[in-house]
Amino acid sequence: MFNKRVKVKDLLASEATGQEVIVMGWVRTFRNNQFIALNDGSTNNNLQIVVELGMLDENTLKRITTGASLKVTGEAVPSLGKGQKVEIKAKSLEILGDSDAEKYPLQPKKHSLEFLREIAHLRFRTNTFGAVFRVRHALAFAIHKFYNEKGFVYMHTPIVTASDAEGAGEMFRVTTLPFDNPPRNEDGSINFKEDFFGRSTNLTVSGQLEGELAAMAFSEVYTFGPTFRAENSNTARHLAEFWMIEPEMAFYDLEDNMNLAEEFIKYIIRYAMEHNREDLEFLAQRLAEEEKQLPQDKRSEMGLIEKLEFVINNNFERITYTEAIDILLNSPAYKKKKFQYEVKWGIDMQSEHERYLVEKHFKKPVIVTGYPKEIKAFYMRQNDDGKTVAAMDILAPGIGEIVGGSQREERLEKLTERMKEMHIPVEEMWWYLDTRRFGSVPHAGFGLGFERMVLFVTGMTNIRDVIAFPRTPKNAEF
Amino acid sequence: MFNKRVKVKDLLASEATGQEVIVMGWVRTFRNNQFIALNDGSTNNNLQIVVELGMLDENTLKRITTGASLKVTGEAVPSLGKGQKVEIKAKSLEILGDSDAEKYPLQPKKHSLEFLREIAHLRFRTNTFGAVFRVRHALAFAIHKFYNEKGFVYMHTPIVTASDAEGAGEMFRVTTLPFDNPPRNEDGSINFKEDFFGRSTNLTVSGQLEGELAAMAFSEVYTFGPTFRAENSNTARHLAEFWMIEPEMAFYDLEDNMNLAEEFIKYIIRYAMEHNREDLEFLAQRLAEEEKQLPQDKRSEMGLIEKLEFVINNNFERITYTEAIDILLNSPAYKKKKFQYEVKWGIDMQSEHERYLVEKHFKKPVIVTGYPKEIKAFYMRQNDDGKTVAAMDILAPGIGEIVGGSQREERLEKLTERMKEMHIPVEEMWWYLDTRRFGSVPHAGFGLGFERMVLFVTGMTNIRDVIAFPRTPKNAEF
Repeated sequence: MFNKRVKVKDLLASEATGQEVIVMGWVRTFRNNQFIALNDGSTNNNLQIVVELGMLDENTLKRITTGASLKVTGEAVPSLGKGQKVEIKAKSLEILGDSDAEKYPLQPKKHSLEFLREIAHLRFRTNTFGAVFRVRHALAFAIHKFYNEKGFVYMHTPIVTASDAEGAGEMFRVTTLPFDNPPRNEDGSINFKEDFFGRSTNLTVSGQLEGELAAMAFSEVYTFGPTFRAENSNTARHLAEFWMIEPEMAFYDLEDNMNLAEEFIKYIIRYAMEHNREDLEFLAQRLAEEEKQLPQDKRSEMGLIEKLEFVINNNFERITYTEAIDILLNSPAYKKKKFQYEVKWGIDMQSEHERYLVEKHFKKPVIVTGYPKEIKAFYMRQNDDGKTVAAMDILAPGIGEIVGGSQREERLEKLTERMKEMHIPVEEMWWYLDTRRFGSVPHAGFGLGFERMVLFVTGMTNIRDVIAFPRTPKNAEF
Repeated sequence: MFNKRVKVKDLLASEATGQEVIVMGWVRTFRNNQFIALNDGSTNNNLQIVVELGMLDENTLKRITTGASLKVTGEAVPSLGKGQKVEIKAKSLEILGDSDAEKYPLQPKKHSLEFLREIAHLRFRTNTFGAVFRVRHALAFAIHKFYNEKGFVYMHTPIVTASDAEGAGEMFRVTTLPFDNPPRNEDGSINFKEDFFGRSTNLTVSGQLEGELAAMAFSEVYTFGPTFRAENSNTARHLAEFWMIEPEMAFYDLEDNMNLAEEFIKYIIRYAMEHNREDLEFLAQRLAEEEKQLPQDKRSEMGLIEKLEFVINNNFERITYTEAIDILLNSPAYKKKKFQYEVKWGIDMQSEHERYLVEKHFKKPVIVTGYPKEIKAFYMRQNDDGKTVAAMDILAPGIGEIVGGSQREERLEKLTERMKEMHIPVEEMWWYLDTRRFGSVPHAGFGLGFERMVLFVTGMTNIRDVIAFPRTPKNAEF
């Protein structure tokens, strides 16, 4: 047994009574041949190790460099340094792994986020990414905790699928066929019967349709898994591979759906605030410093912590799409022709419109309902006006769309009619339609883009900085 | 707001004081035009709804068929029927969705598991699959709870990857290139620079290598995500798409690794036993009935609950590979030439060997360590004997290998040497090797196949029955 260490987080929270402990971690800095700042990733805070002068030979001292890993046995004693209660008075010190100062890319200085993206395998070792990924963990756990407490069943919907759930966009093909001389039918087309799954398959864009199948048995289910878009979008908000949470609930109408989504978002933010306060404070400070580089009018009105508290403590604004368009049409921005894209009833709102609504007009998250059916998916419940559907999008300051959902069309006839209008293959979707044939019920659901949520909570500005190894056009490194 | 119902599970656990409640769910059976068994998926138990004679018209009564969905308002009153404390005396009843008795495939009779696999979109509505997927949920939640309590960070490692983590087997290609006239290099080979990610990519077979990168910063991390094998294995134990849990821990040796794995498995089984007792009892009974069909000597020695309790309460047996081979060579089975495959030091043990060890010899889970390096992956730590590596496999009765893990080779020179011997591209893996260049530490980890764990706990015998929509050769339905 090697693992007899005390974690830094636990040690810093304990009383220093001179007890002997073993700690292990990586050197962040080493000052005056005497003070080691040791980090083990359990917290952003470093543990100070004090090495008495003369305790170590010259050669060992030289090897205590940034990034080197140590095993230290010593006494936990009260610290005289500021910002920490406890430090370790080293009795013995073993270097587990060296870190050549000439070659180690992560020297203790400020590195750009762009540079750190190129060494994504090492960036977890920085304060910023340590905090981001601990917060990401907390949010992920809070998501499971929230739904578990409510009695939802966690479903793992398939990643490889033969159906394009919503015509949601470009898909990745999954195949074992060779590019050289693939099997072909008599008419020259590719014979996918010879492919691994006996048909043409791709990576899922959403687990919703399968989630609905399960909701028709368990009433309330959720998914939390990876989804994919083969869109050539090289932006700070798009990933080709990202994680989504998709709850799906029988016996819910649109209002029930909105209530759940709002409660859910507040719950997971509150959880992170309670469990990762130090990480969030660090990230708030980072953001404040980053924003100092911006002109006054581009800076956030609230600090990160303030923003999160505001979201927890206030109701989300709820407006209809029609109201949203009216607000835009009556806005000073519109009158001064500041919008690049057209505004009129029927448009698919652009980022500039959404940001105006949440950042300028309401200054808080906004739930927009009742979108025109033409710009929404086939499965959304048709409203009586014949023009709109019972959709809801949640827009968040700085992020834009963070949730997309709807009440689902539970009426078989209306659903198949709409599918035909939209050229969705009704025959192939027999299994989906069966839920409307046998014991159909009013139901609803939504999808939350996990990385966008992590962006929102951490105050990071590029989505590539909140997922461990981002997958984007022309990039699948690591 | 539509969702004002009380869940059946909560109602059955409450006191019946004549309070008015709304319940919603699906009809399981309807007897004597009077007694409805209603299920909402929150529990395997049905709620009895009593409809007074004359309350509903003939037409409505006819529509209360198996699978139909209802909204019932009524009084919660003490039940006279056996097996339930509470029933509902209906005051009003609304049929939300019909279920044509002529067409609904799930009539209240025994269906074979094979038949139910063909209607996987509806099988959640049966007692068996209701129980299986609630237990699956409980195990998934327990996994997150276990690691969260220990301070592990949940990492989402990439699904689309350019590397073959361990040469673990056949992989699925992920591509947006067309089969017709794909872009080619001058030498005629496919030009993957033109593919979406600018290189050849596939679906991950393991998140371990990326997990190791994160463990070198957070000390303790885990993954829980889908993994893929394009193997043409049409067996009851193989899936092309399955979920894996892969913890990876800095400062752990092989013994620490074994201790964690054993504690982990016991924890999640105990969690399911505590939270899903009724589901497990139902599954235990199902298994017992299924085994009645088998000849005496093929039946399990223990019932399901008994088996799970035994696993929780007893230490796993820990033996070396060399000891395992000795046991096999000295076994009556070997002497009577009952093994189909050869037994000698150096073999990759076959299923029949593993089953002999766990089911006949030890009759409990067994951890086998110190496998020959030739049959294990390049990253496993080399033992001083020059022949074996610090691997560990956990074998479970009825399942075989459920965990595969090892201490990792943390010594740069030994690792690169082994990679070269095994023709692993050292250059491409620069990022992996960086963990050994900068602050390398002893570390270890393992992978648990989630579906095999669910099989073990639920007593189901085909892995296609414990994942919602199984992906197997020639099958990607739903």
